[in-house]
Amino acid sequence: MDANGFSIGKFIDDMAQFSTTTEGVTRFPCTAESLKARAYLLSVMTELGLNAYIDNVGNVRGRRLGRVEAEKALVFGSHYDSVRQAGKYDGLAGIACSLKMIDDLNRQNIVTRFPIEVIALEAEEGCDFKSPFIGSKAVTGHFELNDLQQLKNIAGVDYVSACEQNGLQPRHLEHQQYTANNTRAFIELHIEQAARLDELGVALGIVSAISALKRIRLSFFGQANHAGATPMSQRADAMVAAAGFIYQIPQLLSDHITDSATITAGHITCLPNRANIIPAVAHLEIDVRDVSDAALDQLHQSIVTCCETVAEQQGLRFETELLGEGPAVSMDESIQQHLWKASEDIDTHAVPIHSGAGHDAGIFARVCPVGMVFVPSVKGFSHNPEEYTAIEHLEMGARLLTQYIINTQEQ
Amino acid sequence: MDANGFSIGKFIDDMAQFSTTTEGVTRFPCTAESLKARAYLLSVMTELGLNAYIDNVGNVRGRRLGRVEAEKALVFGSHYDSVRQAGKYDGLAGIACSLKMIDDLNRQNIVTRFPIEVIALEAEEGCDFKSPFIGSKAVTGHFELNDLQQLKNIAGVDYVSACEQNGLQPRHLEHQQYTANNTRAFIELHIEQAARLDELGVALGIVSAISALKRIRLSFFGQANHAGATPMSQRADAMVAAAGFIYQIPQLLSDHITDSATITAGHITCLPNRANIIPAVAHLEIDVRDVSDAALDQLHQSIVTCCETVAEQQGLRFETELLGEGPAVSMDESIQQHLWKASEDIDTHAVPIHSGAGHDAGIFARVCPVGMVFVPSVKGFSHNPEEYTAIEHLEMGARLLTQYIINTQEQ
Repeated sequence: MDANGFSIGKFIDDMAQFSTTTEGVTRFPCTAESLKARAYLLSVMTELGLNAYIDNVGNVRGRRLGRVEAEKALVFGSHYDSVRQAGKYDGLAGIACSLKMIDDLNRQNIVTRFPIEVIALEAEEGCDFKSPFIGSKAVTGHFELNDLQQLKNIAGVDYVSACEQNGLQPRHLEHQQYTANNTRAFIELHIEQAARLDELGVALGIVSAISALKRIRLSFFGQANHAGATPMSQRADAMVAAAGFIYQIPQLLSDHITDSATITAGHITCLPNRANIIPAVAHLEIDVRDVSDAALDQLHQSIVTCCETVAEQQGLRFETELLGEGPAVSMDESIQQHLWKASEDIDTHAVPIHSGAGHDAGIFARVCPVGMVFVPSVKGFSHNPEEYTAIEHLEMGARLLTQYIINTQEQ
Repeated sequence: MDANGFSIGKFIDDMAQFSTTTEGVTRFPCTAESLKARAYLLSVMTELGLNAYIDNVGNVRGRRLGRVEAEKALVFGSHYDSVRQAGKYDGLAGIACSLKMIDDLNRQNIVTRFPIEVIALEAEEGCDFKSPFIGSKAVTGHFELNDLQQLKNIAGVDYVSACEQNGLQPRHLEHQQYTANNTRAFIELHIEQAARLDELGVALGIVSAISALKRIRLSFFGQANHAGATPMSQRADAMVAAAGFIYQIPQLLSDHITDSATITAGHITCLPNRANIIPAVAHLEIDVRDVSDAALDQLHQSIVTCCETVAEQQGLRFETELLGEGPAVSMDESIQQHLWKASEDIDTHAVPIHSGAGHDAGIFARVCPVGMVFVPSVKGFSHNPEEYTAIEHLEMGARLLTQYIINTQEQ
């Protein structure tokens, strides 16, 4: 750290070096690159005067003492793992801005009544273990030891063993958990991962809610047959039915009660998947999100009705299965109001926004009030080496967090 | 062969035993099951008085002498290999009816002016070697030794080596070829593999042409992005474009100049094919057929235009590639007329029909006039253990072939 203090840009570039790929950042949980990242995070936090340590599941935490150390801690943070060939801002933006905020508080000699923690969370993407939010679920009581033992990476190593191989003690998780009794709130800054702020030319978004999510399987069962011999009128083609549903997605959304919903048909299995055989089976795995649970339930029903109609028209059998779901998470009203006030105090135009993507804040919401701030992603690139957020926007985010502390430090 | 002579049903049931699967018939070329089938075919042909032998590439041939043995031979036949878990009639129907015809001629003491051959063709489906019509291409000069050496099965054994391992001499292929100089015509009876005859309640179809075929790749290139974070309006979703094309197939066909065309989107590759990522790439491999080359070319152009429009609407890039094609094959007019005359003589109602599927007859068409007869497939099942053709329809097919010979024996 030079005389100008903590540098967001240098921190993000330094962290991006810990990658198994040269094109894009690839830093899966509990890997050698992850260990290097932990050591670096520990050194930066220590240099900023935080009481820093790596917790039992690989999160790196730094604590800044409050005047009343028994008070519940106000926690800031985001994740430091990545998907394969990610950009360098996803997750790191929030850690960088939180650390910059600490540096600001230090320089302004601000001592808050309550303690502040910065947490760099492991395994939010959870790649290789095929499960997101591992670090935050472990420290908020969502995951118990047994759950972590069920998570296996591609080498067949479970998350607990992986932590132990990293010198950690995941079996003593309960000593380090965030609870309603010790945690005031969790505030996460993150890149938007979409282009709304970029298109509006606005530096900050104050998040109102994280969308509810459903992962749904839609299966169409037709009849395999000869592509040449079978007249069009005598077919029961599963791909045609799947395409009929996908084609109607815009109409389903335009008929829907909100304008915030998304439907993505990202995974398809076509059987037998041979060019000269009429498809017998098409399985779609779709991702559906909306800002409220009720709106999402309604959209889910519309999707099923649409698929049933398409299947009936084509003479196919339709089956569906709910593969997973997560409820909508509202950001705390008081935190939102304080974030709006802080944005006015630093004279920055912010806009309200919702998060289509899930975040660690959604996990912390089970134990404490949560808030989120978005900074722009240029052109909305996400999970992509082209992802970019301007330094001035990140610095504005850090200023917002600092101002939030200044305004609430005695509460 | 009992006192009642050759039994079509027993022959088909006997052949169905030579299968590597118990559900459905699976008899790939040059396998142990194929060798058993050859031995059985040889014994049946010999018992019927044919001069029978296994040729250099695994076809089983039987020759019935003519009064003028130097005359060009009239060849009947179809294939004896199968796809995985096929029905027992595909291919075998034509061999069975041709052998029944031989038995009929024997019993009626008919001696034709010209020789007659029955050929049971190997490797029409060509499964495992991933190339159809191997047996017929080898004996009509379409494939040379070098072509056969390029064809490798899943074990990496090329077709020539596979034949040599079966005790055959594929390197002397040229001595056994059918040419314009030694072949009068090739007539193939086959199950329809569609439900038109079955629905009409007609025993016989006289084929006018085999459809022209194109195998086309359609590739849509969009932008991978986060399924939750990316608003619907900011997407370039390759699956949506692919679905847009598939959905428009019925419209494309109804706008088309013929009503005989088929378009099948049987193979799809979606990338990255993850439920929570907007698809970046969708490759479709489509099978397109029509009765004439000109009509097929026109349909091909309409498909490309449709895809270009869909891609442009969705903001994607589109690329296409012609992966393979085969011209339409007209059945010989004189053979068709004689087949119509024969159907009248045996007092059976036949209908004109075209073949969407390719057949060995299409290969023989390069060296001699060809004709085809279809018998019904109940409900149109094809390449499926449920495939079924009634014995009386097969017997009617055999009677048609016998009557054809009776009517043309002195020509």
